[in-house]
Amino acid sequence: MKLDDFLQGKSEWLKGEGPKSSIVMSTRVRVARNLNGRLFFNWADDKQREGTLEAMLSALKKSELLKGALCIRMEDTNMLDREFLVERHLMSKEHTLDVKYKGLVIGDKEIVSIILNEEDHMRLQVLQSGFNIMEAWRIVDDIDMELGRYLTFAYSSKFGYLTACPTNTGTGLRASVMLHLPALQITEQMENVYEAISKLGLTIRGFYGEGTEAFGNFFQISNQVALGHSEMDILDNLERVINKIIIREEDTRTYLAKHKKQEITDNIFRSYGTLKSARIITSRETIKLLSSVRLGVDMGLIKDLDTGTLNELLLLMQAAHLQKTSNMKLNAQERDIKRANLVREKLTGG
Amino acid sequence: MKLDDFLQGKSEWLKGEGPKSSIVMSTRVRVARNLNGRLFFNWADDKQREGTLEAMLSALKKSELLKGALCIRMEDTNMLDREFLVERHLMSKEHTLDVKYKGLVIGDKEIVSIILNEEDHMRLQVLQSGFNIMEAWRIVDDIDMELGRYLTFAYSSKFGYLTACPTNTGTGLRASVMLHLPALQITEQMENVYEAISKLGLTIRGFYGEGTEAFGNFFQISNQVALGHSEMDILDNLERVINKIIIREEDTRTYLAKHKKQEITDNIFRSYGTLKSARIITSRETIKLLSSVRLGVDMGLIKDLDTGTLNELLLLMQAAHLQKTSNMKLNAQERDIKRANLVREKLTGG
Repeated sequence: MKLDDFLQGKSEWLKGEGPKSSIVMSTRVRVARNLNGRLFFNWADDKQREGTLEAMLSALKKSELLKGALCIRMEDTNMLDREFLVERHLMSKEHTLDVKYKGLVIGDKEIVSIILNEEDHMRLQVLQSGFNIMEAWRIVDDIDMELGRYLTFAYSSKFGYLTACPTNTGTGLRASVMLHLPALQITEQMENVYEAISKLGLTIRGFYGEGTEAFGNFFQISNQVALGHSEMDILDNLERVINKIIIREEDTRTYLAKHKKQEITDNIFRSYGTLKSARIITSRETIKLLSSVRLGVDMGLIKDLDTGTLNELLLLMQAAHLQKTSNMKLNAQERDIKRANLVREKLTGG
Repeated sequence: MKLDDFLQGKSEWLKGEGPKSSIVMSTRVRVARNLNGRLFFNWADDKQREGTLEAMLSALKKSELLKGALCIRMEDTNMLDREFLVERHLMSKEHTLDVKYKGLVIGDKEIVSIILNEEDHMRLQVLQSGFNIMEAWRIVDDIDMELGRYLTFAYSSKFGYLTACPTNTGTGLRASVMLHLPALQITEQMENVYEAISKLGLTIRGFYGEGTEAFGNFFQISNQVALGHSEMDILDNLERVINKIIIREEDTRTYLAKHKKQEITDNIFRSYGTLKSARIITSRETIKLLSSVRLGVDMGLIKDLDTGTLNELLLLMQAAHLQKTSNMKLNAQERDIKRANLVREKLTGG
């Protein structure tokens, strides 16, 4: 498997299927792990960093569950590749910089990815389409258990798993759910959601995670605290809260379909029309319009389109993806033109 | 011929053909005439008004050139009919009010219309598609001459034709050309055009004539003065100035096609996409978008559409037309929905 193959195959989490996929785009669960007896990455010297990377890579090779996974040393990649991986939600922005001794493992269909020597020695993440916290956790847990046979993780009976940043200490667990909440946004209920979320020990973020703005009505909700609760408690709490938000979004969509049908329909079809017509388009506008069209698909107003295609577009229209697809460096204006062409082709079939 | 028949047949000036029809939508020439020995309409009493109307109607019946024309007494029409006639540029807004003793004659294909007992006893106008001042004048002149055989017009050897308002005295002539100048507007050259126009004894107005705003890049240019020059001088001057504006617009379009191709194309196709997609649309937005699409047709970017269809839409999407077409009274919101449906059907063919 090569990096460029990802451009062809569809990743599992983009399918646009799975429970509640009309509102939940994807679910991500990750655990942070560090090797016992080895300094945290940022405290270690070059030799220790290399040693840690080697130890992890050799353990990963033994894994049955990760058979066939792509193992990458970040220094063998160029910047465009790395931005491409960030855009696919397979690793963090930080992992694109100071790439020496850093690595990434990507499993079949991009369900599993393992970030090596970022802040923690190992961050194991699983992405699933739709609202699938428990299934994602099951996969994480299985791989975590298996890797535990070949590696000894830093663990304290008092604190749990030890991590570079104390916010991850304990379970090392972060579960995030990417929600599409256009109805709550349109009816100005997101303020309430933000308030409730923060009281319940959860955080809400934008499309690309920490520190990013919410746009196109996509919101990522995840647990704030990893310590003092069991994994099951953390996941249960998140699942419970998100279920409530989903119901609220569903109810509001029903309300809109009943009382604001014309306005909503107008807005949706105008967005669809613009996506099918534009010759120059920024990523920000594209996301906003795709969000509107997605609502149209979910409400049954647009029938000639599926959520999978919209997810694929959300991914492919990004800067690094556009450049990898067209196999050349593109400036912002060139990207806006390429993006418009791509969107038009996907939506009009020619 | 009945009023409602106009909804079916296309009027001559909407064909989107004729000289320079990519820039000049239509040409209008009218003369103001009053009957000798009869008081101007606004000074006359009811009996005199009725007498003037009768005298004109009986003369018009004798006309060979107006054979088969539709003769309307305004009091036999309802308000919707009258607004409909204004929207078709067949009479003025003023002619919809205080309708007693007022009349309107409409010739075949709406080329000729004669407004009876408005400010002047008679205003004879001819509408042509494209840039056609001399042809329009020829038709006006022929009818004027013929009617002069049955009616004696108020005429002074010193002033020429006498009219209710001194701005019309002399020739009684006003020639107007409706221009579509998107390139001059986009490149912010209209300020210069306005300045030049006023220095040359011409005026520039919006889509619906006197006192209306220019929108959708449509501008109506006409002569200001009717006195002190012969008809030919007035028409020559207007033709000459407009020819210069046309060349300027053409050159600017060529410039845009060369240097701003992407931006212009993007704007045009977005406009087209919105017109084909919207479910609610105001008349103002429709005109703006139709203007953009028209430029696309004229620049050869949009190939599946002709100017005639765009002209027809400009007419049919107006408030009174929408209500006559759907045979019911509609409020603003209902019209915006009907308008969107109409535009979509015309442009997508279903």
